[in-house]
Amino acid sequence: MTQTPKNIAIIGSGLVGSLLAIYLRKRGHKITVFDRRPDIRTIKFSGRSINLAMSNRGWKALKKVGLEDNIREIAIPMDKRAMHVNDKPLYFQKYGKEGEAIWSISRGVLNRRMIDLAEASGAVFRFNEKVWDVDLPEAKIFTGKSEKSEWKEYKFDHIFGCDGAFSRVRHKMQRRSRFDYSQDFIEVGYKELTIPPNEDGSHKLDKNSFHIWPRGKFMLIALPNIDGSFTCTLFLPFEGEVSFENITTKKEAKNFFKVHFPTVRKEIENLTEDFFDNPTSAMVTMKCFPWTYWNKVALVGDSAHAIVPFYGQGMNAGFEDIDVLDQLMDVHGDDWEAIFDAYQKSRKPNADAIAELSYRNFMEMSSKTANSKFLLQKKIEKHFAAKYPDKWIPVYSRVTFSDRPYAEALAIGDEQELIMKEVMKFPDIENKWDTEELEQLILGLLENKKAT
Amino acid sequence: MTQTPKNIAIIGSGLVGSLLAIYLRKRGHKITVFDRRPDIRTIKFSGRSINLAMSNRGWKALKKVGLEDNIREIAIPMDKRAMHVNDKPLYFQKYGKEGEAIWSISRGVLNRRMIDLAEASGAVFRFNEKVWDVDLPEAKIFTGKSEKSEWKEYKFDHIFGCDGAFSRVRHKMQRRSRFDYSQDFIEVGYKELTIPPNEDGSHKLDKNSFHIWPRGKFMLIALPNIDGSFTCTLFLPFEGEVSFENITTKKEAKNFFKVHFPTVRKEIENLTEDFFDNPTSAMVTMKCFPWTYWNKVALVGDSAHAIVPFYGQGMNAGFEDIDVLDQLMDVHGDDWEAIFDAYQKSRKPNADAIAELSYRNFMEMSSKTANSKFLLQKKIEKHFAAKYPDKWIPVYSRVTFSDRPYAEALAIGDEQELIMKEVMKFPDIENKWDTEELEQLILGLLENKKAT
Repeated sequence: MTQTPKNIAIIGSGLVGSLLAIYLRKRGHKITVFDRRPDIRTIKFSGRSINLAMSNRGWKALKKVGLEDNIREIAIPMDKRAMHVNDKPLYFQKYGKEGEAIWSISRGVLNRRMIDLAEASGAVFRFNEKVWDVDLPEAKIFTGKSEKSEWKEYKFDHIFGCDGAFSRVRHKMQRRSRFDYSQDFIEVGYKELTIPPNEDGSHKLDKNSFHIWPRGKFMLIALPNIDGSFTCTLFLPFEGEVSFENITTKKEAKNFFKVHFPTVRKEIENLTEDFFDNPTSAMVTMKCFPWTYWNKVALVGDSAHAIVPFYGQGMNAGFEDIDVLDQLMDVHGDDWEAIFDAYQKSRKPNADAIAELSYRNFMEMSSKTANSKFLLQKKIEKHFAAKYPDKWIPVYSRVTFSDRPYAEALAIGDEQELIMKEVMKFPDIENKWDTEELEQLILGLLENKKAT
Repeated sequence: MTQTPKNIAIIGSGLVGSLLAIYLRKRGHKITVFDRRPDIRTIKFSGRSINLAMSNRGWKALKKVGLEDNIREIAIPMDKRAMHVNDKPLYFQKYGKEGEAIWSISRGVLNRRMIDLAEASGAVFRFNEKVWDVDLPEAKIFTGKSEKSEWKEYKFDHIFGCDGAFSRVRHKMQRRSRFDYSQDFIEVGYKELTIPPNEDGSHKLDKNSFHIWPRGKFMLIALPNIDGSFTCTLFLPFEGEVSFENITTKKEAKNFFKVHFPTVRKEIENLTEDFFDNPTSAMVTMKCFPWTYWNKVALVGDSAHAIVPFYGQGMNAGFEDIDVLDQLMDVHGDDWEAIFDAYQKSRKPNADAIAELSYRNFMEMSSKTANSKFLLQKKIEKHFAAKYPDKWIPVYSRVTFSDRPYAEALAIGDEQELIMKEVMKFPDIENKWDTEELEQLILGLLENKKAT
């Protein structure tokens, strides 16, 4: 269904804001994008980002507006984890089936390109313009230098809040009665570090891997960039024995890496300088409802559902929001109230599901990776899934390589977990994990599930 | 331990703010209480309050500063529920043992008296003065006519945020990183109505009862006032078949009461006028952490832990906060950082527990009161508790008539629930509920619990 062209504001020029601008320009709407920050194309990146892992949902949303090939140019496929465990040789874990990969992209590089593309499509960007207030029923926004300065007023037909986890637009919705809201920080923070390219421009580590140095309560990861560098992220508790709190001098930082990351520390450029120059960032799960106000205002992406980054789905979920909105515009045309209402009802359970899955991945990472029973369970699942790919699709694959709803992945994952709980009770499981007998047990349990 | 006198601001002149002022004046501190609203002693009450049910924790906190007798004067003991079920004669349920009661107090009457008492103790009240900003590390507050007007600056040694569920002080703390926060509204709203006294000033219903007209998804309650009137509260879903949304005319309001509350509707004064004049209020569970900022700022009462009113513990929990703070001042003296830190660590689990218990009571009320299995379970528990008062103290009594931690009540309640789940599986339980056999089963299950 076509839509009557409207005058629309998007608050936030991040990845979701720029992609939404492109989608809405395709439909002929007049688009103004506001951002309180300067144009990211004119400044140095902030040094507080984890590289993105674009997977199926993200690519699907880009493809729909013809941007897939363009963005592939700045992405590097990672088809496996490279596990750097101390005192063990490096080993690899495939993410999916042959040909399946997640794609590493620098957030800054992608954001710059997306803004270029949105501008080329006719969207107008107003950088350095801070939105201080939003009149929800009138779809007005008020901008100005400061909260107490003179404000400029704009009126639109619709407003999209794409202004991230600490959204100003949501902040305004939050003041209304009966707005459900939660923000939960985890006790782990992160810091960006860099592994530069070799002198010939090549990557210092395997470039088609997501590198992980798991250390129980903390870990280091590295994702490749197209310039030959890797963006590293150190995840470490804020407080406690081994923690950001306890690394306050260059000597302590150096020693921390020497003890825990001896094999990689020499590759990390300006290790101790960056450690103290780059900020330590917090991670939050933010949930809220409703996401929309009548036919006037809608939250999209992190402003509606911020998640911890341990499933690599933040951007993918935001891009999928846009895809869903677009489908609903086809269905409901000019009935924006119907579009917004169907959008929030359809997306909310899925946003909650990916929030839960992401949080669980964090818990798993920090508590279970050293648990031999857990590793055996994962091995059995993998073995069975490889043999019966139509009977057992792992949750990771459902989330990453499919476009089925996140909520379905979570529900099926929970069923699989119950089955595996039974399976792990099997006598002498350590030696019988790949037997015909065990296989029959799993098949039986799967049949039982289906029957109930 | 004595404390060096400090200059302290309390934001909010509600029940918790005024009682805290009295406690701190006893210790010789200089106290200024700010409230954005006018002096409640000079205005008509707002018509949006549920009468308070003061129980053990509240009385204990009042007694400590010698106010128990003073406040008893304006309170009426309720030793039982009076259940008004359609097509059944009125029946009563005792709250506790002989001599145990909860006490009905009008929020407005109590608040006026508490402010009088706080003023008499030397606290200075600044009404109609809105706090717009708080400088947490400097313990400064900024007040003014509006957010954009000129502000007046005050500096204190410590600031207490007693400004309720939508606390401005907390709002400021919330903007900091790593502040956990959630607000969850329930789908039921409430509205205040009034049953006036008889012409001779006596009560129209039994004055020593908490009157309930349970109707499944909604209910009416009435609590006695000392002037012979009852404050009624109608709890009703916002939306749905029988809901506030669907009562929009006086005729519909009249009809609603005629159908669902035929026995009481004539007693309710100005029924249809009040229905539309009084606001429909929402109910929220609010949790957050931390509650304090260094040695400077602390949240007390609803600003730290707002709960739904179905356990009648909101004010009691707030008063208990003050009692705990006072105990910690004895322990830590002038070390306010230690006081604040111990306070939040001690109170947070108990605040979470009473939030959970209150929410469960709401769920119970709306879904289980008509369930015969549930009623049988309650009957068995009561029977057993009466016979073995040292082995089985019901959760309600632990919360209401003791000062043991809420978290303990919740934990023991969960254990009791597990035991009752087993008990209810007993064959022919409907007829054997008061047999020796069943009694032995419960005793055995209790022993098992202890062993594990």
